[in-house]
Amino acid sequence: MTATSSAAVPIRILGLDPGLRHTGWGVIDVAGSRLTHVADGTINTDEKQDLPRRLERLHDGLVEVIGVWRPDEVAVEETLANRNPQSTLKLGMARGVALLVGARAGLVVEQYLPMIVKKSVVGTGHAEKEQVQHMVRMLLPGFQRSSADAADALAVAICHAHTAGTNRRVMEGMLGVRR
Amino acid sequence: MTATSSAAVPIRILGLDPGLRHTGWGVIDVAGSRLTHVADGTINTDEKQDLPRRLERLHDGLVEVIGVWRPDEVAVEETLANRNPQSTLKLGMARGVALLVGARAGLVVEQYLPMIVKKSVVGTGHAEKEQVQHMVRMLLPGFQRSSADAADALAVAICHAHTAGTNRRVMEGMLGVRR
Repeated sequence: MTATSSAAVPIRILGLDPGLRHTGWGVIDVAGSRLTHVADGTINTDEKQDLPRRLERLHDGLVEVIGVWRPDEVAVEETLANRNPQSTLKLGMARGVALLVGARAGLVVEQYLPMIVKKSVVGTGHAEKEQVQHMVRMLLPGFQRSSADAADALAVAICHAHTAGTNRRVMEGMLGVRR
Repeated sequence: MTATSSAAVPIRILGLDPGLRHTGWGVIDVAGSRLTHVADGTINTDEKQDLPRRLERLHDGLVEVIGVWRPDEVAVEETLANRNPQSTLKLGMARGVALLVGARAGLVVEQYLPMIVKKSVVGTGHAEKEQVQHMVRMLLPGFQRSSADAADALAVAICHAHTAGTNRRVMEGMLGVRR
């Protein structure tokens, strides 16, 4: 088997922090252990509109982001259920649309619990939100603090890069690929 | 203003009882106060598949139902949150996909609480599931008992027919339209 280096082939990851009101998104490129900030933003829906229209707006926004930035893989924050069941239902709706859009685009879609994201980005699963955002700025110098949701989305993308990188190394180790 | 009768123009309603595992659907035609059973069924997803694929399966199934039966309006059962937050999240995902597919098809999409559906079909908001299914069979003689989910979906469609009919009568009254 030929030794190959994944450093030459960057992988583009779209991170998503879905919510009905605000869905943060962030795109990074991963080449080996090198991360590069590509783009980020927030998709907002109008609370005055009815649920079907708001979900359609979120859907269309995500389809546009994927169409423009063409990620290879999607990482979605698996926020835990809210204490308020109505909020949990709405969270489920937004996350369902995010997972659906990724699947329909034929992309790998993985979910990560917030604790795993924090552990991956800050080193501890109990980090404060501010610490996570600080580390996102450290790891992705190109990121201008746009919104907290976009920062969270980039954190999920970084988490996926680390985890997928680990998985790739494990698999390459099993396959006897040298770097 | 010319007097018109809505009895001549049947409206086709798609009722949905969304769930991640099983989504019941039922199509009825409404001409004035006359209801006719058109079709019904259940969209099942494979529990062994991951969430994005299951949501895609549900999405594709709903798109197919709408493509084949071409409803004018969609009525979705607004099942209350489950006590288990994980189940509530999944319910939200399935319902989100149902609302999204209706909205993307450019259709009117309304949600109805189970209590409203029961009140509309049986006459009391506290009816048992069996009573609802019995009344669905009485109101729609063409309905062969296929699945409980399909019966629930038809009940939502009937509820929408009654409610929308009431709204139409109120509006027509305000507009001075005679029947």
